[in-house]
Amino acid sequence: MKKLAILLLIALSASLGWAETAENAETRDIALPVPAKSGGLPLADALAARATHREFSAEALSAQTLSDLLWAANGFNRPEARKRTAPTAINRQEVDLYVCLADGAYLYDAAENMLRHVADGDLRGLTGRQGPGNFALTAPVALIYVVDFERQAMQDRPNDALRYAAVDCGFIGQNVYLYCAANGLSTVFLGSLDPAGLSRALGLPTTCVPLFAQTVGKPAE
Amino acid sequence: MKKLAILLLIALSASLGWAETAENAETRDIALPVPAKSGGLPLADALAARATHREFSAEALSAQTLSDLLWAANGFNRPEARKRTAPTAINRQEVDLYVCLADGAYLYDAAENMLRHVADGDLRGLTGRQGPGNFALTAPVALIYVVDFERQAMQDRPNDALRYAAVDCGFIGQNVYLYCAANGLSTVFLGSLDPAGLSRALGLPTTCVPLFAQTVGKPAE
Repeated sequence: MKKLAILLLIALSASLGWAETAENAETRDIALPVPAKSGGLPLADALAARATHREFSAEALSAQTLSDLLWAANGFNRPEARKRTAPTAINRQEVDLYVCLADGAYLYDAAENMLRHVADGDLRGLTGRQGPGNFALTAPVALIYVVDFERQAMQDRPNDALRYAAVDCGFIGQNVYLYCAANGLSTVFLGSLDPAGLSRALGLPTTCVPLFAQTVGKPAE
Repeated sequence: MKKLAILLLIALSASLGWAETAENAETRDIALPVPAKSGGLPLADALAARATHREFSAEALSAQTLSDLLWAANGFNRPEARKRTAPTAINRQEVDLYVCLADGAYLYDAAENMLRHVADGDLRGLTGRQGPGNFALTAPVALIYVVDFERQAMQDRPNDALRYAAVDCGFIGQNVYLYCAANGLSTVFLGSLDPAGLSRALGLPTTCVPLFAQTVGKPAE
């Protein structure tokens, strides 16, 4: 979390020119370092190492790791066309990734490579409490998959809407699994989150539903 | 398709000892070559190249490519534990991949690394007809994602059943996208298939539903 704290200070300082006070919510946004868009473990080796792990170290991830992880998950890989590492039905890009850290919750702004501060406090416990050691509160990062059903524009076909929303979350989730497998991180994808609690805490409009979560961190020693 | 034809002949010859006649359905199974479980493009480069393409060459894929593709998609990466490259909710492994080629349809048997012949004829047209050039009939391979809702065992929670089934298909689908991106193949994931027609043609029990499809082939010249 040290690097994130440093980045936060930089963001606070840099923002003084345009923000009225350092207490503005905007000043708690976190600019991420440029993500690595090449290199790493060969794809087949990442697939061979792909696994679910439910035991985590509490150690924070560096800002660089967080940036690489989020770009792999759902970053723009063709920014000029606004297209991403994961597909969506009819290119609606209806899935937003929220990032819950111990100190608050952020929206991943892929276009600006920023974490936009959206809520104070620790929401990780709302993402699932399965397994040994209450892992959702141990691991440093909980990703929330929030689907904007209005943006998806399939309201007249509810079964299709859920089917497409869920499969689109799966594309992103597998990117996270493979990034973790390739970089020695642990992860578990979760369907048993608290959607109502998360919606309230994140201040989501009623068209947006937290559909899944995914815990990410270093493996337990 | 040449290599597949050769493999088919080998399978036919090898099977004469235990099959009554070469016309038995069993003899049309295809043994796949051992898949590559390491190497290839680095993960981040595969993510950078990930894209949807709807224009295909009609050229067949080699048996080696088909084997590598299917292992990447949903093969056993930890065979001793019967665990796979893609996760499923509560490890139900409720998604079966069917492979439609011009000459028939096959079930991917990941444990035996075989294509099990299940139907004659060309079912690729039942997987989607979107886009230029009726691509589903041009591309050599159509994958069908069939969910066995009985194996999934969430019948008492229909919304959860669909949500988990669809996200589990997405994990596999992203593996296919990344394999294709890393190996110069084109692919498009499809939700607009003909589930009833496919169920009839594949002889599926009523607990099994074709939920998605994915076209794979070489890019159009």
